[in-house]
Amino acid sequence: MKVAVFGASGYTGGELLRLLVNHPAEVVAATSKEYVGKPIYLVHPHLKGFYSMKFSSLEEALKGDYDYAFIALPHGLSKDLVPKLMESGVKVVDLGADFRLKDPSLYERWYGFTHPYPDLLERAVYGLPELNREEIKGAELVASPGCNATATILASAPLVKMGASHLIADLKVGSSEAGSKPTKGTHHPYREGAIRPYSPSGHRHQAEAQQELSKLAGRKVKVSLVPHSVSSVRGAFASVHSFLEVDEAELWRAYAKFYSGEPFVRVAQRGTVPNVKSVIGSNFADVGFASDQESGRVTGFAAIDNLIKGAAGQAIQSLNLMAGLDERTGLTIPPLSP
Amino acid sequence: MKVAVFGASGYTGGELLRLLVNHPAEVVAATSKEYVGKPIYLVHPHLKGFYSMKFSSLEEALKGDYDYAFIALPHGLSKDLVPKLMESGVKVVDLGADFRLKDPSLYERWYGFTHPYPDLLERAVYGLPELNREEIKGAELVASPGCNATATILASAPLVKMGASHLIADLKVGSSEAGSKPTKGTHHPYREGAIRPYSPSGHRHQAEAQQELSKLAGRKVKVSLVPHSVSSVRGAFASVHSFLEVDEAELWRAYAKFYSGEPFVRVAQRGTVPNVKSVIGSNFADVGFASDQESGRVTGFAAIDNLIKGAAGQAIQSLNLMAGLDERTGLTIPPLSP
Amino acid sequence: MKVAVFGASGYTGGELLRLLVNHPAEVVAATSKEYVGKPIYLVHPHLKGFYSMKFSSLEEALKGDYDYAFIALPHGLSKDLVPKLMESGVKVVDLGADFRLKDPSLYERWYGFTHPYPDLLERAVYGLPELNREEIKGAELVASPGCNATATILASAPLVKMGASHLIADLKVGSSEAGSKPTKGTHHPYREGAIRPYSPSGHRHQAEAQQELSKLAGRKVKVSLVPHSVSSVRGAFASVHSFLEVDEAELWRAYAKFYSGEPFVRVAQRGTVPNVKSVIGSNFADVGFASDQESGRVTGFAAIDNLIKGAAGQAIQSLNLMAGLDERTGLTIPPLSP
Amino acid sequence: MKVAVFGASGYTGGELLRLLVNHPAEVVAATSKEYVGKPIYLVHPHLKGFYSMKFSSLEEALKGDYDYAFIALPHGLSKDLVPKLMESGVKVVDLGADFRLKDPSLYERWYGFTHPYPDLLERAVYGLPELNREEIKGAELVASPGCNATATILASAPLVKMGASHLIADLKVGSSEAGSKPTKGTHHPYREGAIRPYSPSGHRHQAEAQQELSKLAGRKVKVSLVPHSVSSVRGAFASVHSFLEVDEAELWRAYAKFYSGEPFVRVAQRGTVPNVKSVIGSNFADVGFASDQESGRVTGFAAIDNLIKGAAGQAIQSLNLMAGLDERTGLTIPPLSP
Repeated sequence: MKVAVFGASGYTGGELLRLLVNHPAEVVAATSKEYVGKPIYLVHPHLKGFYSMKFSSLEEALKGDYDYAFIALPHGLSKDLVPKLMESGVKVVDLGADFRLKDPSLYERWYGFTHPYPDLLERAVYGLPELNREEIKGAELVASPGCNATATILASAPLVKMGASHLIADLKVGSSEAGSKPTKGTHHPYREGAIRPYSPSGHRHQAEAQQELSKLAGRKVKVSLVPHSVSSVRGAFASVHSFLEVDEAELWRAYAKFYSGEPFVRVAQRGTVPNVKSVIGSNFADVGFASDQESGRVTGFAAIDNLIKGAAGQAIQSLNLMAGLDERTGLTIPPLSP
Repeated sequence: MKVAVFGASGYTGGELLRLLVNHPAEVVAATSKEYVGKPIYLVHPHLKGFYSMKFSSLEEALKGDYDYAFIALPHGLSKDLVPKLMESGVKVVDLGADFRLKDPSLYERWYGFTHPYPDLLERAVYGLPELNREEIKGAELVASPGCNATATILASAPLVKMGASHLIADLKVGSSEAGSKPTKGTHHPYREGAIRPYSPSGHRHQAEAQQELSKLAGRKVKVSLVPHSVSSVRGAFASVHSFLEVDEAELWRAYAKFYSGEPFVRVAQRGTVPNVKSVIGSNFADVGFASDQESGRVTGFAAIDNLIKGAAGQAIQSLNLMAGLDERTGLTIPPLSP
Repeated sequence: MKVAVFGASGYTGGELLRLLVNHPAEVVAATSKEYVGKPIYLVHPHLKGFYSMKFSSLEEALKGDYDYAFIALPHGLSKDLVPKLMESGVKVVDLGADFRLKDPSLYERWYGFTHPYPDLLERAVYGLPELNREEIKGAELVASPGCNATATILASAPLVKMGASHLIADLKVGSSEAGSKPTKGTHHPYREGAIRPYSPSGHRHQAEAQQELSKLAGRKVKVSLVPHSVSSVRGAFASVHSFLEVDEAELWRAYAKFYSGEPFVRVAQRGTVPNVKSVIGSNFADVGFASDQESGRVTGFAAIDNLIKGAAGQAIQSLNLMAGLDERTGLTIPPLSP
Repeated sequence: MKVAVFGASGYTGGELLRLLVNHPAEVVAATSKEYVGKPIYLVHPHLKGFYSMKFSSLEEALKGDYDYAFIALPHGLSKDLVPKLMESGVKVVDLGADFRLKDPSLYERWYGFTHPYPDLLERAVYGLPELNREEIKGAELVASPGCNATATILASAPLVKMGASHLIADLKVGSSEAGSKPTKGTHHPYREGAIRPYSPSGHRHQAEAQQELSKLAGRKVKVSLVPHSVSSVRGAFASVHSFLEVDEAELWRAYAKFYSGEPFVRVAQRGTVPNVKSVIGSNFADVGFASDQESGRVTGFAAIDNLIKGAAGQAIQSLNLMAGLDERTGLTIPPLSP
């Protein structure tokens, strides 16, 4: 099996390359706009010795011969690339947002463009295996979920099944979510030790979380999402709050049942809670819950590595399903702790 | 003015000593159970050169001559000490929880003991100047608020005034909140990079936040509080969520009005949000807000230094009010950033 | 191939378990003094789902059936365990210091005990494959190097070959070096942001670094080692300084030649330097060098993950050599970055 | 007393503004190239409420009326500004490197420009009060030392007095040293957890450290300086190594004597070592030493806050001396710890 990675010089692209080292798929092309012709280790020094190839341009890569393509480009850049790849018979896992939403009008609202391929939106499958495993198996185009959406959905899906309809997703995320380009917000002296909200209203992942949770519930579910920057590098933690009259025993049963048999979701023992430290470096999502009987608050928790279960790992999980491989292929590296 | 610090070897006690260096009050006694007779710099090497005194025992300190006492002892240890001090005419600022709650029955529920001095609970003033400035001025016993309660109340007081009654306070806090004793949860390899909830239901500060916000509103306000450990050392950040039909202009007016003239509360400009990085090392609380019209969610934010506005600084603010000093005395050190 | 891990509840033991997940060796016993009978995920929550076994006592494990034993016990505890295992025909990789030094008198000086098995010291092989590969292949007992010694030796071996005889090894290390037990020095509020030397004179790894570098040089080499605590969790970085009249071109040739063909040593391109961020999570040592012509200073650098190349990974590398496996078996996981 | 701050939007400029809040000098101008006309809190949100002034241009500030000017501009920008200020009778504390070196030819070598005012180099006083207190008192132009040079000199001055002539200064520094502009090297995901050398040969501060230590010794002293990036934000720690036959008792006497009476240098008790955690937020330099008798190595240590004793605080210390104030004016804020 041959694969291409479009957008291989960013963090998500680098993580794809890293994980594919221990995967049967062979990487035959890795593109970069800024580093065409440069060796991969120049950008990803940790990968020195693993890849002898050089970054190629997008145009060059389009001429290559491969079965699957991962797209790890900024939002808005894959919508025109995907149709070209699909025409050549290449199956695609897009890690950007361009094919996640079913309703074309949402692209105007949340991403500021009119979607040129509404028909492809219908054919694209939202690549969260815990919700859409069977569709992913048969998909030609998988829209791999955003990291904050992944954490939000996995934290709260059982709550939604139990009846929750108004969710407040309070996320705490590491700096690698912001990507590999230095900015004021990720300048080390500014970011280290910081705790502050970003996108305090209207984070884009809200739309996809809402779409998938509503589909799961079979009714309209409202999700309001507030991510916070904290000083970790990796990790996204979702605390999804709602008001619901349930006790902890019911919650335990609901979570255990919902995630029964899932290879990459681990439900916290009662009395314990998830921690990003236990999932970093792996494709696991550790989930848990708590309830405060006095106020009626119930909270679902999920901890993921934003670059793996929130991006590259989940994309490979979809690839495995599409290709008929064991879903865990290349993803059995345990978390790195401490 | 002479003061004694009971419990001076912990982080809060050390912070009192640090801030009192630049305050007219003279520290005449500093107690420690573990370090009696040892020089202060042994425990607080950063204070080397500022204090020549040694730690004394509680018993010895009780015999001393001073006008005010700060108590920074673990919960449950001040309830018997305070009456003794007050009998001697000493005015007290207690940084522990023993006199924060008005309803004695709540001590049984939240702290596991029957309060021996319910009459003192009535006389004690909850030491949050932004709510209770006038009572503090005349108080003989101030119960200085918990750090998480301080952040929660300051983040949401204007929301409560606008009608919010069901609040979910999602806090993110640094490791210094856990105190100066090494534990598994604060072991550096475990804590650095961690994001996880602690006390996911039933955090004790919930009771005092509920008491004060209800008093402010003149009606029952429910607050459910979920703190999360993140890898900062200092800082507590509260995101207090509720559902309320208000727009951002109304929010701005409400926050600006509520905190008008407050010397230590800074309301974030519209379009910006608070960040603990801008308050560390100071007595400031930076507050802000956001609303998500689609879901009806509204959130109040507050960033404080948990050891200053959340503990030692706020206690000195109360002392200043009790002693008739300018409220800002000794507290005008700007935040340390970056 | 069956293996036992003695001392499996600490960080090094946990790392052995983690790496052995992707290794053909089967772990049949994992001991812990404190957690006998408890499931492994209780101590190592990141390994949940990978091991169903429980911790056993040392005594129980001694009765088991396995070909190789890893010992990750505190210094002084393996010296009596090793002979028992060897008598049963078990080959041993000891990650502690009890068999690293050839001269028995050094145990009295550095570790404070008279070594009970000086004959075993002769038979033990110092498990640094880059220096002793052939001996490791035939060894029945491998004394796996200390993390600081590993970094020091790999940073400076080419310098010693070029003639350097007086080395000052200035190390900067993460908190995981201190082990899994909470202490004052690893309390998060104290350690995070700290930069300070520990063992500023007389660090024990000095003895083994001196022994191996002297053996390599065929003359007496003096190494003075000063480790510093910095606020990373993982990572040990050695800057080994000496005075030597060589230029950068000679240095480049010496390093490139010395490490030619080494599967786990990567020499930095000229003009670049190693960084622990590029090796964390892997068995790589990235090495480099610099010279200051004006003062005659020359410095060798090495960056390792203290728990992998500095402990568990290097021990597995020795196991692979002893067992006739490809040296890289189970160790091809690329570093985790960022 | 009126002062102007040239270059007030960077970290050093911000720190000057912060410290001057509690100093009798009145800040009448604060310049910024990028933020002319913008309020100070926009760039320094932590200072909100302390300054109502706006940033002015350099040209505008030159027309102002003040007694002293601090210059916190990038290297190369003050050499032409200083003469203009001095002509107007303004006394100057320059925090850049343009007037630190006495030998004009060194500017060509280290900074790449021919110095236009060699006469001013003679008149400028190197602003390290511990070495040059009396000259500073009478100076019209003080060249305030670099942070790495300050740590290096304070760590090793007593060693040099004892005879050390070849010094290797191994520094470990926080990210704020790199300034306020985001770069690849200070991107949070890259920098957090990093340990790596930068300027591994030929760091510019080497020249000034060599100049001042040679002057102190009355003979040529060679200093080779290697700074390392670690993941702290604030703090510079120097470990200055040399070979010298002295014992710890002699070292103790030498350090105690050399720094006797110094208001901002604290010598570590025997058996303890300095730590940046004990000086952050203050103007203190904590110094110490260690010796390894076996190898003849001796090391002097110094811990400073790079933005205070390494920049803004030390500059104010010079201002105090120049203005005949108590040297500690505005600098008595104790370190912030934990």
